Amino acid sequence: MKTETREKLMTVSVATLATALYKRGLRRQVIQGVHPVGQGTGRNMVGPAFTLRYMPAREDRNQLSEFRKADHPQRVAIETCPEGHVLVMDSRKQAEAASAGDILITRLMLRGAAGVVTDGGFRDAATIGKLDFPAYHTRPSSPTNLTNNEAIALNEPIGCGDAPVFPGDIIVGDTDCVIVIPAHLADEVADEAVEMSAYEDFVVEQVHAGEPIIGLYPRVNEEKYGPRFAEWREKNGR
Amino acid sequence: MKTETREKLMTVSVATLATALYKRGLRRQVIQGVHPVGQGTGRNMVGPAFTLRYMPAREDRNQLSEFRKADHPQRVAIETCPEGHVLVMDSRKQAEAASAGDILITRLMLRGAAGVVTDGGFRDAATIGKLDFPAYHTRPSSPTNLTNNEAIALNEPIGCGDAPVFPGDIIVGDTDCVIVIPAHLADEVADEAVEMSAYEDFVVEQVHAGEPIIGLYPRVNEEKYGPRFAEWREKNGR
Amino acid sequence: MKTETREKLMTVSVATLATALYKRGLRRQVIQGVHPVGQGTGRNMVGPAFTLRYMPAREDRNQLSEFRKADHPQRVAIETCPEGHVLVMDSRKQAEAASAGDILITRLMLRGAAGVVTDGGFRDAATIGKLDFPAYHTRPSSPTNLTNNEAIALNEPIGCGDAPVFPGDIIVGDTDCVIVIPAHLADEVADEAVEMSAYEDFVVEQVHAGEPIIGLYPRVNEEKYGPRFAEWREKNGR
Amino acid sequence: MKTETREKLMTVSVATLATALYKRGLRRQVIQGVHPVGQGTGRNMVGPAFTLRYMPAREDRNQLSEFRKADHPQRVAIETCPEGHVLVMDSRKQAEAASAGDILITRLMLRGAAGVVTDGGFRDAATIGKLDFPAYHTRPSSPTNLTNNEAIALNEPIGCGDAPVFPGDIIVGDTDCVIVIPAHLADEVADEAVEMSAYEDFVVEQVHAGEPIIGLYPRVNEEKYGPRFAEWREKNGR
Amino acid sequence: MKTETREKLMTVSVATLATALYKRGLRRQVIQGVHPVGQGTGRNMVGPAFTLRYMPAREDRNQLSEFRKADHPQRVAIETCPEGHVLVMDSRKQAEAASAGDILITRLMLRGAAGVVTDGGFRDAATIGKLDFPAYHTRPSSPTNLTNNEAIALNEPIGCGDAPVFPGDIIVGDTDCVIVIPAHLADEVADEAVEMSAYEDFVVEQVHAGEPIIGLYPRVNEEKYGPRFAEWREKNGR
Amino acid sequence: MKTETREKLMTVSVATLATALYKRGLRRQVIQGVHPVGQGTGRNMVGPAFTLRYMPAREDRNQLSEFRKADHPQRVAIETCPEGHVLVMDSRKQAEAASAGDILITRLMLRGAAGVVTDGGFRDAATIGKLDFPAYHTRPSSPTNLTNNEAIALNEPIGCGDAPVFPGDIIVGDTDCVIVIPAHLADEVADEAVEMSAYEDFVVEQVHAGEPIIGLYPRVNEEKYGPRFAEWREKNGR
Repeated sequence: MKTETREKLMTVSVATLATALYKRGLRRQVIQGVHPVGQGTGRNMVGPAFTLRYMPAREDRNQLSEFRKADHPQRVAIETCPEGHVLVMDSRKQAEAASAGDILITRLMLRGAAGVVTDGGFRDAATIGKLDFPAYHTRPSSPTNLTNNEAIALNEPIGCGDAPVFPGDIIVGDTDCVIVIPAHLADEVADEAVEMSAYEDFVVEQVHAGEPIIGLYPRVNEEKYGPRFAEWREKNGR
Repeated sequence: MKTETREKLMTVSVATLATALYKRGLRRQVIQGVHPVGQGTGRNMVGPAFTLRYMPAREDRNQLSEFRKADHPQRVAIETCPEGHVLVMDSRKQAEAASAGDILITRLMLRGAAGVVTDGGFRDAATIGKLDFPAYHTRPSSPTNLTNNEAIALNEPIGCGDAPVFPGDIIVGDTDCVIVIPAHLADEVADEAVEMSAYEDFVVEQVHAGEPIIGLYPRVNEEKYGPRFAEWREKNGR
Repeated sequence: MKTETREKLMTVSVATLATALYKRGLRRQVIQGVHPVGQGTGRNMVGPAFTLRYMPAREDRNQLSEFRKADHPQRVAIETCPEGHVLVMDSRKQAEAASAGDILITRLMLRGAAGVVTDGGFRDAATIGKLDFPAYHTRPSSPTNLTNNEAIALNEPIGCGDAPVFPGDIIVGDTDCVIVIPAHLADEVADEAVEMSAYEDFVVEQVHAGEPIIGLYPRVNEEKYGPRFAEWREKNGR
Repeated sequence: MKTETREKLMTVSVATLATALYKRGLRRQVIQGVHPVGQGTGRNMVGPAFTLRYMPAREDRNQLSEFRKADHPQRVAIETCPEGHVLVMDSRKQAEAASAGDILITRLMLRGAAGVVTDGGFRDAATIGKLDFPAYHTRPSSPTNLTNNEAIALNEPIGCGDAPVFPGDIIVGDTDCVIVIPAHLADEVADEAVEMSAYEDFVVEQVHAGEPIIGLYPRVNEEKYGPRFAEWREKNGR
Repeated sequence: MKTETREKLMTVSVATLATALYKRGLRRQVIQGVHPVGQGTGRNMVGPAFTLRYMPAREDRNQLSEFRKADHPQRVAIETCPEGHVLVMDSRKQAEAASAGDILITRLMLRGAAGVVTDGGFRDAATIGKLDFPAYHTRPSSPTNLTNNEAIALNEPIGCGDAPVFPGDIIVGDTDCVIVIPAHLADEVADEAVEMSAYEDFVVEQVHAGEPIIGLYPRVNEEKYGPRFAEWREKNGR
Repeated sequence: MKTETREKLMTVSVATLATALYKRGLRRQVIQGVHPVGQGTGRNMVGPAFTLRYMPAREDRNQLSEFRKADHPQRVAIETCPEGHVLVMDSRKQAEAASAGDILITRLMLRGAAGVVTDGGFRDAATIGKLDFPAYHTRPSSPTNLTNNEAIALNEPIGCGDAPVFPGDIIVGDTDCVIVIPAHLADEVADEAVEMSAYEDFVVEQVHAGEPIIGLYPRVNEEKYGPRFAEWREKNGR
């Protein structure tokens, strides 16, 4: 992804992005049910998706000894997720067993990933929540990954929290939610979201100053709010 | 509602109110599954219900252009909810799309509402959670309202989190939960809850002092705890 | 339970214990869906299980007057749970009504219990969350216990959050989750978990120092990491 | 609705109608989770929607004596639903108590209604299932309506099984499912569905004769299947 | 239970019984979510409850060898359930593994039990459904019982499908549902239900004859329907 | 798969197979929540798995025109599933839109497949249920596949109803359920299940003749039942 696109996406909310995609007919790009582990990092997570798909674990294939194999897909995912990418895990929306734990997530952070999302849960969540690394899940889950999940494939198209995720799609997370921007739309959506955010910030100021929302949000009363917003942009350099 | 009733309800817990209603045969007045957005305000939310009903959104009726109409019911709800009232939204217990966002909730606050409750989720929840305004939902949800919800009616009887809500019912929220007091019971229930709270506070002190709960809570051993409580009330001016 | 076992279990994570039980073929010992009330105490909860079983409440048997009876099983549970034990409540995974409230939990704390777990919800959760006492539930729930639950039996084998709990099993809770260790395995599992934790702490340090996880976690590359870990143990006295 | 439209809709499947609406951007018009009571009638249910909205029942407002009132909305719904209309009930997707029973449904049939749908459950379902009257629900449910539902409003826009239903929308049910056709689309969708059904019936014959589906369904290989279909239409008078 | 009571309960519907209990303030006596296995027997199931409680299965306690023990509680339940009783199983509303299979249910039938209910599922359901024996479950489930359930206790108070069941309560099942009548109410409720059924049957006839329901059901218009019903009773000997 | 294995598996129940796999430590091989479409065929479905994986549909990639492409994976699955194989679809346990309809399933049947399973739902289910072809789903679902599902990959390892399915695993369905036998176990499990079925059939006869189950099922009383069973086998040629 372009550096400018990443920078723009660091400054906008998932809600604004969701509206920008809604305009384009895409209504299900928010990963449902996930939130930041612990208190979150306070900054956006932005990066292209690198995916890991789990399937239901068959007991004979998922003994602890599996983790001793250098080619175990979960381990390989952690060691090959490209720098700046977000590792997105399809855990089939099940948090009864862990999608990963603090050691792997720490390694992922050290390797320069931009963040991690699962529609399951992390073990050692209290520790992960204190890392300076964006991580999203549905709830803490201590049972080892193998209890319920077999890591089966890397970088395939997957579902995560009922959203479609293709490798390379741009993932953005904020304090509330995580969204999947189709790769080919990332630049134009980032531009549009920056514009929308400027207007929304202006609106919040107007509302705090006592303005009603009708005519202001969305901007129908162009005569009244057009010039005010132009002035505000100039004053605020946006 | 009477000012004294409001003041009393600011001091009691939803748990105490739930018990007072239970005595009257009302068992389902707690709005299930909602909690304060963010850290909450630390004070109770109290006010008569003003309701907004959502129905499933049909795509052709819920394009973004709808919000440009001055009579869109969601916008009208925000601009007409009477001062001191709580806006209660029936979002059909679905949080896949937002019930509202920070701009509308800020406007609602500025207009003097007492709070807002949805059995869905708010977008911009991180921002809403920092307002000095009581707001309750089930989880943050970034997709625009129109994705899933069509605002269809104001001030009808509704369900919210499986509780029945009639316009004018008294809504009380604390750090844990939100309850719906039928309008005609508000005064007597407020009185009773203040009395119950006094006794509960006394009990907590007794328990910290080492008393067992049997005979004390509820007060069966009148001989022992009757006089003690009378003394405590006098000492504490309650 | 042995004092040393308790002390060991105070220092290890539920995740580590889950893996130790997984090795022994036990895959469902984590109580699903519960988390600390409020912010938690920051230390582990450890103690043998003392159980309370709830059944669905029949209205005629669950009037408020029931609580006036000295032999009401919920009250008896609070007053007889042995010191150092964890009270585990089978609330049938339903949080629509409370499993207990702050007065009872305070009394339980005063009596020296080691903690409390329900697969339902507590009322007065904001207060319970501030006690220096480990308590776990699924969410705050203000309706009185009697609304949905009849306390029916003490110290029977129960289910809690889909985990099997026998009286005397060792319950361990941390910031993430709660686990049930079968009584006969507690000593050996505690020993093993202490060993595993030492290695995991070593691994975290190695990862922060830039080591990849393959060969290190789990330890396959004995030649490289065996001596390093031995050195680390000596240096850190573990 | 036009007589010809009704007649056309008697001959097509809900699946075909769902595809016709999908082409128009309407993706959620199927009422989710309902099926015919008992074995069904074997013919389609077709008629404009007449709606009844339930809200959660508050105990004091829902004693059995309520049914003695001539203006109880559920009773009024049964006695005023216009001939040829389908009574659609918003039971909030809850089947813990009945939406209605055999006496009311029999009366509805006698009054000439075209059918009934609830996203809850009927009591006396075994009896209803034997009436020559199309009725759809989620499962049998014996508890009286008042246990969980208060009939609150007639002929409002509602949700039913997560589908939006406006009074006057055309409801079509077959052996599998029920769909809601927006009123203004009914004529054109009926026409289109009849055309589509003709082609689908032709396709089924071709498939039974050994044709592969690629090129045939949908019809891409116009050169091959265009003339064959024309011939089939002529032969079959469709 | 009295023979006459049993005979009366063989002739009335669960819906009628639910209403009779509703009048007495009992709103949750219907076992939610169960239905007859297969096509059912076509006659009511009536008998006092004999209960079996399952808890989550711990793997080491639930090897197939357990079934070799003569005192395995599930086997004991089958061999000791008294004649004329209904075996009610608390399977924690989980059907992922079986509550029992055809061999045990056949034996239960041969021993003279009146029926069986589980809020889980039966294996060999196709076979059970063909026995001339009332059996109710939520869905077929082939995995062996031990996979998920440990039979732990006989004849304790339990929950089944969220209904409270005490040993000796009278269980009645029809084609739609199953209800739990508290033992002390069985005789009076049976009497009342027989009366109610007579009136309901009269009402159905009236409705088929074209009468509206208002004034008739419930009977408000005493002047009109009182004499007619008296005449009907006489004519029909009820 | 070997012809004899197929033949054996045609004669045994999924329940028996589930127990045989349970003995081998495999506890989750039953596909949860599926049942035969309509009345089923009355015979077992047996064949190696050929898989199709769905992911959540992104609107821009799932217009009706997609079906015009000869390489659409769903269409390719239907046209390439090998003779005698069972097509297993991972529909993410969602039945809000169809997994396939009658035209495709008819073609699959004509091409000689052994059956089809989805953990979603089929459209045109009434028609599919009348084909002489084993098909399993969770419920009828009329909305077109594209509404919710994008067919993304053929013959990958998948989950179906929470069971792990690898291409080539042997799928067996009966009137109750569907099970997944790992390919390498099929022969031995088929042999064992035939043996077990013989004993179970013997047991059923004994039970109908009045024998108690203790000692008989499982066979602990070898002295009594060993010779009887031997005799029964001889007599019945099994």
